[in-house]
Formats: sequence, C-alpha cells, structure tokens
Amino acid sequence: MGWGDVGAFGEPSKETPNLDQMASEGMLFLDFYTANPLCSPSRAALLTGRLPVRNGFYTTNAHARNAYTPQDIVGGIPDSELLLPELLKKAGYVNKIIGKWHLGHRPQFHPLKHGFDEWFGSPNCHFGPFDNRELPNIPVYRDWEMIGRYYEDFRIDLKTGEANLTQIYLQEALDFISKQQASQKPFFLYWAIDATHAPVYASKQFLGTSQRGLYGDAVREIDDSVGKILKHLQKLGISENTFVFFTSDNGAALISAPKQGGSNGPFLCGKQTTFEGGMREPAIAWWPGHIPAGGVSHQLGNVMDLFTTSLSLAGLQPPSDRQIDGIDLLPAILQGKLIDRPIFYYRGNEMMAVRVSIYKAHYWTWSNSWEEYSKGINFCPGQNVSGVTTHTKEEHTTLPLLFHLGRDPGEKYPLSFASDEYQRAMEQISGVVQQHKATMLPGVPQLNVCDKAVMNWSPPGCEKLGKCLKPPKSDPQKCFWPH
Amino acid sequence: MGWGDVGAFGEPSKETPNLDQMASEGMLFLDFYTANPLCSPSRAALLTGRLPVRNGFYTTNAHARNAYTPQDIVGGIPDSELLLPELLKKAGYVNKIIGKWHLGHRPQFHPLKHGFDEWFGSPNCHFGPFDNRELPNIPVYRDWEMIGRYYEDFRIDLKTGEANLTQIYLQEALDFISKQQASQKPFFLYWAIDATHAPVYASKQFLGTSQRGLYGDAVREIDDSVGKILKHLQKLGISENTFVFFTSDNGAALISAPKQGGSNGPFLCGKQTTFEGGMREPAIAWWPGHIPAGGVSHQLGNVMDLFTTSLSLAGLQPPSDRQIDGIDLLPAILQGKLIDRPIFYYRGNEMMAVRVSIYKAHYWTWSNSWEEYSKGINFCPGQNVSGVTTHTKEEHTTLPLLFHLGRDPGEKYPLSFASDEYQRAMEQISGVVQQHKATMLPGVPQLNVCDKAVMNWSPPGCEKLGKCLKPPKSDPQKCFWPH
Repeated sequence: MGWGDVGAFGEPSKETPNLDQMASEGMLFLDFYTANPLCSPSRAALLTGRLPVRNGFYTTNAHARNAYTPQDIVGGIPDSELLLPELLKKAGYVNKIIGKWHLGHRPQFHPLKHGFDEWFGSPNCHFGPFDNRELPNIPVYRDWEMIGRYYEDFRIDLKTGEANLTQIYLQEALDFISKQQASQKPFFLYWAIDATHAPVYASKQFLGTSQRGLYGDAVREIDDSVGKILKHLQKLGISENTFVFFTSDNGAALISAPKQGGSNGPFLCGKQTTFEGGMREPAIAWWPGHIPAGGVSHQLGNVMDLFTTSLSLAGLQPPSDRQIDGIDLLPAILQGKLIDRPIFYYRGNEMMAVRVSIYKAHYWTWSNSWEEYSKGINFCPGQNVSGVTTHTKEEHTTLPLLFHLGRDPGEKYPLSFASDEYQRAMEQISGVVQQHKATMLPGVPQLNVCDKAVMNWSPPGCEKLGKCLKPPKSDPQKCFWPH
Repeated sequence: MGWGDVGAFGEPSKETPNLDQMASEGMLFLDFYTANPLCSPSRAALLTGRLPVRNGFYTTNAHARNAYTPQDIVGGIPDSELLLPELLKKAGYVNKIIGKWHLGHRPQFHPLKHGFDEWFGSPNCHFGPFDNRELPNIPVYRDWEMIGRYYEDFRIDLKTGEANLTQIYLQEALDFISKQQASQKPFFLYWAIDATHAPVYASKQFLGTSQRGLYGDAVREIDDSVGKILKHLQKLGISENTFVFFTSDNGAALISAPKQGGSNGPFLCGKQTTFEGGMREPAIAWWPGHIPAGGVSHQLGNVMDLFTTSLSLAGLQPPSDRQIDGIDLLPAILQGKLIDRPIFYYRGNEMMAVRVSIYKAHYWTWSNSWEEYSKGINFCPGQNVSGVTTHTKEEHTTLPLLFHLGRDPGEKYPLSFASDEYQRAMEQISGVVQQHKATMLPGVPQLNVCDKAVMNWSPPGCEKLGKCLKPPKSDPQKCFWPH
C-alpha cells in the first residue's frame, strides 16, 4: 500500500473512512519510512529494529539490487537476531503473527522459533497458482504445521479477484484479541495481511465497491477490517491499554498499475525504488486516552522504530550488544517532540540516499534497468525526471543530488550545486553519512543463495494432509535478482 | 492554488489547520472543477454561471489557446452577461469584491457597473514592477477610483517575498462582514485574493513559517485568513446564516515550481492544461448547522455551480433567457445527493475533454508547445505520459483517449480502444458531447484584441493622486497568446 492510498493522506476517492477515523482519533505520521522498498527486508527491519544490511536481509549478488524471500531462498532470519516478540516474552507478552512472515520458510526460520507463540498465515507471498511440480503452491500454516495451500485449500480466484483471506485474517485477529483479554494477558499482534499485494484480491462483499477498481476494493476491505479491530478493542474495554500502529512495508507497486496498482500520492516512483514513492509510508498511531486526537507529526519515523517503541511501551530496553537503528517514538507520539535523526535509503548493501531534516541527498540514483524498462516493467510510469529517474545506476557520491522535500516532495528539482543552500545542507548530511558508514558492520547476506530443493515441497504437517511433494535434487545457485 | 495544496486534500506538509478544520466542520468536494485552466475565464464563469465560450472569455486568435485579461486587453465582461451580484441585488444583498477582478479593466467593465456595491482590489494580476512608460503599474481601486498602484503604494518586495496585501484584504473582509451584520443586511462577499499567484508574496509574520518555502508561506497566510473570517462569522453569531465556499480558479502553476509553485496532488500537469492538474480544484463548503460536519462529496462540481447555488440560497431563479452551465449544488451539499452532470474542459473555443461520471475522454491533448517547452516552460515538469502530454495539439476526436479517473486519477493509462469498457463508456460520453455541441452558441470573443492605449495609464482617481500617465497612440492588434 502506498502513502497516497488512504483518504487522510490525500487519496482522491477518500474511501477509507475507518483509517481516516483512526487518524482523527490518533496521530498521522507524514514523514514515516520503511527500511527498504521491498517486502522481506522491510519486515525483517521492523521485527529486529535494524537495517536490512545489518540483519542480513540483502544480497551482494549484484550491486544495489533489492532481494526478498521467494520459495527457493536458502537464507532467512539468523538466530543471532533478536526479534521483537522474543524480547516482549520477557515482559509476559503473548505474541501472534497473522499473515505473511517473509523472513525465511525453512524450518530454522519458523516464526515460532523466533519468539511468536502463534501463527496463522504463510511464509511467502500468495503468488500462484503453481503446478506443484516445477513449483509448489504456498502453504498456509497454523502454528507449527501447514493446514493447506493457497489456491488449493485457500481459494484465490484470479479471474474475479475474489478471495476471503482478509476476512479469515480478520477473524483470527478478533479471536486472538478476545482470548488475550479474557486471560488478562498482555499481547503483541503482528497483523501482517498480504492484501493489496498483486495478484490483488478482495472478499465478495467488497468487490466493485470502490471507485478505484479491484485494488481499491482490497483497500476498502483492509480499511473495514482495521475499523473492526479498533471497535473490538473498544468493545472489550482495552483500547486505552492497547497501542495500535498502521503502516505498510513499501510504497505502492506502480508496475501493477492501473489494474492492480496503488497510489504514492505526490511522491516519485514506487516500490523497488529509493525515491519517496518507494519508501515513504502511510502511518497512523492510535491509543485513545494517551495520544492526542487529530495529531499530525513530522517526526522522521521508520518501521524499525516500532521495534524500539514497542519495547519502550512494555518497559523493556532494546539490546545493548548490537546497533539498533529504530528509535523510541513515544516522545514524538505522546509529547509532540521532534527527535533529530536521519533516514537511510538502501538497495542491497548500497546506501542510495539519506534524508536529514527536510533535505534528501541521493548518492546513487536508479529507477529500474533499461532491460526491464524495455520489457514494459516501469517503477515510475509517466514520470521522467532528467538525471533523477535513471535507468542505469548513476553515482553521485562526489556531488549528491539534493532535494528540499518541503518545497519539492516529488523530487523533481535538484538544488543547484553552487547554491549556499546546497553547501550548507550537504555539510550537515556529509557528517551524518560519514559517521553512518564508519560504524556500519554488515551482517552475513541471507539472500544470495537459492536452491529449488528448499521450496515448500513438504512443510511440517503435509503428511497428515497428504500434501507432501517430492523435492528436486539440491542444486544451490546464486539467486538472480532482476530489480 | 492546486488540489494538493491543502492538508485535507493530502498536501504532505499539512500546514493548513484552518482549512482542514473548515473541511472537518463542513463538506469536502473531491471532484470539483474550474471552467477553464486560467484565471480570467475561470472567474468570468464563476460570476456568470456560464462556460467562457458562452460569456466571451476566450480567444479565436489561435486554436485551443487559453487567454486572460492583461493590461492591453480591449475586451471584458459584456453588458449582456448577468453577473451573480446583479441578480443578488434583487434579493437585497450588498455585494463586495475584494481582490482581483480580472473581467476587464476598461471603464465599462468596472465591477461596480456589474452588480458589485463595493470593491477593494485590482483589475489585473499583481505583475510588476513596471516602469510606467512601456507599461503602467497595476492600480488598486477602492470602489470607483484608484487609490494607488502595486509596487508604488502597495509594496511587494520581490527579493524577500514580503507584502502585506493578504492582511489588507483580510481586514477589508472582516470590516465588510461586521458592517453588514450591524446593518442586518444580507451580503455577498467575493474574497478574490491574489496570493499564491506568482510573483508569490506573504506578510512578514508568515515568511519562513512553512516547510514549503515562500509558496507555502502564502498558503499558510491564506489558511490563517480563512480561519479568521470563519471565526469572525461565528463571533458575530451569523455563521449558521452564512454559506462559505473555498476554492481556486485553476490548478497550481507548475511552471513556477519549485520556488513559487504549488501542488496538484496526484493529478497530471497543472495550470494552463486540461489535465486534472489544471482544472480539478480544492473545494470546501461550510455552513454550520446546515451542512453535515465532515462530509465528503463526490458530486461533480464546477465553479459555475457557485452562481446557481448562491441564487438558490437567496431564493432566486437563474436567468431563463440563456444557457446556464452551473447547477444548484444544494441537494448534494445538504442531502448528500449525487446529480448526474458532465464536466467540459475547454481551451479557447475548443472542447478538449469531457468527464462523465468516472470517465474522462480527451478529444484533444496538448500540454504546451515545443517552442515553449524548449525555452524551459513546462506545464508538466517531470511528467511525460506517452501520447497524453503532447507538445503538439493532437486530435483524438474519432477515438478519444479515455481514462478511468477512479483507477487512474493521474491520467497515465488510457483504456484500450478495443475493450468493452471503452465502448460502453464512449457510447454514453458521445451522446453527452453531441448534445453539448448541438446547442452550443459561442459568445462574441472578448480576448482577441489588444491595444497598449487601453492599459491602466489613467484610471479614474489618478488626477487626485497625481498618478495619471500618458497613453500611447491607439494601435489595436490581435492579442498574442503564447499558451
């Protein structure tokens, strides 16, 4: 989902009454970012509070390429990483993930091995249907074992766009919340639904209800679900004791437009890119009785902050034996403070850009390759900013392209290199970048090796269901990342 | 000002708390249009309820060119046109215009000859400073006579961007409202400030207060002023008896970006074009106790509707001896109804595009000429949609380019000509266009002839001020319209 997909953020159909109400009762974050413009690294960053280059969710197979966790990925979240639910357990929290895990699907990466107590969802995206010979269909897990596969046991009709998955995920969420409330246990629910990701789907009752086509229908179903979750918290009387945060893992995928693509509002390009459209996210914090209603924050935020902020809410300290990139947002949320901190935009292990206060410096620019572009894959359709949306990787490290994101949120007008403003801003930014690079210790890259043998052929539980498939011979290879 | 310049419409700095509050107390119109992507025709349409091609505010000097009322324009609003204040007088209204008139500056076009009782402002834009030899500075009128000139008596500091004009216009508004309330007279105030138009200015107290530079400072001053006007109405106890509508005359001028340009949100291009960025406008209706708070309307609206709606509020009928294009929006505003009506997008006397429900068909496309473009004048900076943002006038009348503005508000993905959806939508649109063209009776074009002798050399009142200038010999010529 993109920054511009929510009414409160300016989507011109304004079809998200529940998210808009959440914003009017809570706080809107206008300058909130993901840690990577792609799903897996973004989620790994959220759960570890660390940049993907630190937690291993990157590739060095090619320069400045994004990578994720398809079925044949060998790597996943390392045991050495401390995940939010592992830490929350120490404060007695019951932790559940509903939806897409995406931090590796081999047994050692199972979410219940990394601090979650419950799981309902899938390890990978809902791509498919597959033939179960060349490629197995994606399994759906309940806790330790699979209970079926997408397209087989969990229907997604690609023709009509109908699938009731979001409803199933919603019910799981409501049930989990009720259960924790009944047992008076503190809980952490990571509601990581995969709706709005292509192939886009929505439940029957939402099909055709949006001005925006199937994608808008999916947004409406998410909006409705968020509304039901918030109302459920209120009904159970625990809304003033439950912190809720809504955000997305990357910008809307403009390659899927117009039929299945969302909106990044006034921002440049989309998913996969380090322009604002790829990394600035809709973000709403909600906590009645604590967060002033109708608040709007310009605090530079990041999904990694949810790690540190959640620990803070639970009265816990973040680990001190490693670099944590997320900051505690509570002073911004509860007292309206503005904490000075940079935002780093990475692709792979390359720092492409950095934002410091209102300025953003691009050290490298790249939208997508000529090869992809010539095949019709375009991360910036209809947008062509000379020297900015480059189809080759362009290095600007000696003279970074600098934008003032207040006057120019769309990154269309680089500041003149000769201007005083450029000199002043770059002086500050250079110091931040130097310090960042000097202390950067990259983790072991997890997304370099692929092997068809590790795909979801025989997930635990497949025997009971008669759904075990025979893996091919192991043949580890370098993963190929087209983007 | 553009659609994307207001927080409630999605401006990413969200610096318009008063307009946002006006929206939360009133109704947001998301699909509201101007009648022309340029100032004078848009204002003529607002005040007559008629398309510029009918009321004469167009040119035939060149095909599909926009035109306005610079100092050397010979034409202006014809006496045969009935303006909103002329009609409101019949219901006892006292009418005042504050700010830019723009409907012709020769004596016969004076606003007090067309229904206004009071005027404080200027006949043309605040361009300048001029030398008073080749070109006179623009006069500022109080009622019948000039009281000074811009840059001479009304300072605009182009270096610092400081000018207190909006504050003067605000005070005029507050005083007028107080006076009418005291005398218990119904009133019509047309608060037509020219702030945010380049050269952009703001009062000292607003300079540097926005994340968006000088343009944002000007928006903040407008926002603050609107807030003060609304509070004044409340303080006087007449807010429940006063209908207020906020909108703009055309989309943000992207040619003025990044230093003096606004935002058209997710829409394509800007001022001067018939893409959504040129003609879709921010629009908020406010009338406490009558308009349901927090309303959002998808009614297709137009500045011309303010003519008919205002008459309706005053219990008057629109003239029946001529075609009126504006409709009465009260059913949409007060009862949430959706009235089926088309939106026509004109340049000169050429219907470039038409919107019917969610579909928009471009019969002609043109952003700006190659000649302008090669000089760096670009109405669509950073945006290049193949076959859509054309630099020559491209005719598509046999197969119009069709967009679904719900799925594709940015007009980036024309529908396939072969699709059923295209066929179905175009069938409906063709009928609407045929009917429109069959009954179209263009007015006498007012914006064809220019003459340096008619410029603001010696406006009434200049003698008293010693500010009369000597006009050159009359030499009427065809106006040259570059856009």
